[in-house]
Amino acid sequence: MNNGIGIVMNKIIIEPIGIIHSPYITIKDVPKPPFFDEDIEAFAELNEKYSDGLKDLDGFSHAIILFYFHLSKEIHMYGKPSFEKDEHGIFAIRSPHRPNHIGLSIIKINRIEKNKLFFCNVDMINNTPIIDIKPYIRDTDIKENVSCGWLEKHIKKRNNFKFK
Amino acid sequence: MNNGIGIVMNKIIIEPIGIIHSPYITIKDVPKPPFFDEDIEAFAELNEKYSDGLKDLDGFSHAIILFYFHLSKEIHMYGKPSFEKDEHGIFAIRSPHRPNHIGLSIIKINRIEKNKLFFCNVDMINNTPIIDIKPYIRDTDIKENVSCGWLEKHIKKRNNFKFK
Repeated sequence: MNNGIGIVMNKIIIEPIGIIHSPYITIKDVPKPPFFDEDIEAFAELNEKYSDGLKDLDGFSHAIILFYFHLSKEIHMYGKPSFEKDEHGIFAIRSPHRPNHIGLSIIKINRIEKNKLFFCNVDMINNTPIIDIKPYIRDTDIKENVSCGWLEKHIKKRNNFKFK
Repeated sequence: MNNGIGIVMNKIIIEPIGIIHSPYITIKDVPKPPFFDEDIEAFAELNEKYSDGLKDLDGFSHAIILFYFHLSKEIHMYGKPSFEKDEHGIFAIRSPHRPNHIGLSIIKINRIEKNKLFFCNVDMINNTPIIDIKPYIRDTDIKENVSCGWLEKHIKKRNNFKFK
């Protein structure tokens, strides 16, 4: 396959490592981050052959879950969240309709039992395939002096809402 | 394919969206986050068909790059970074030798020119295939009250080092 930049790149085959069990059944049920429902818990159930890989993750407060937007069948170059009026490039938004359809959520770990990781800060729907889980690391994943382009005006509104 | 949890899950085919051009040629050249060399710049060159997707990303200070650890041919359930003496589950570390071999870096955006995203905070080697780019969003990606299990002792050492 030629990728348009003169370099031959092979396709990559991903095998989901597990699945999300979530009380959110349809996309409309899912809260928009950062407005999570703190009472809602979901769990990631891993293929049992990966249970050992969860060892010591329970020492972390948060984890990054990479997952597959399995309901998205389209790829768009532009899009906009429902709260925004202008369209932006697909790599400047978090839309599911992106090349490769991979999503990222940072979840709060509640507990781990064998091959099950229970968490809150849920924004995934039920039956979402899981691709990877990584520890959230304070001094590499928290950045300083962050600016957020077209999102800034919404973040300011969100902060007003949160501290009301 | 049965994934061991009683649910049939299909494999997912990923097509890299571009490639990293980095001055780091071998894994040994790459700095360990968060100790980046601030003078080093790399760029992500996307397939030209995805150029439009970068629109408005330059308003953000940081982006998340998902990439493929193309040199890793092994999957381990345990591992440890070179600075740690004990082994931990693969999902509690950031090792390349993980199921699906997907890596995540949060980079600092310098500028965007057509299909090229120039950045610093580089920890990827040259020719790394890129899977996705997402905006880094202050109020969803920066978490509060973060604890980091086995890594805490190293983070405290790093902070001492940084503020020396």
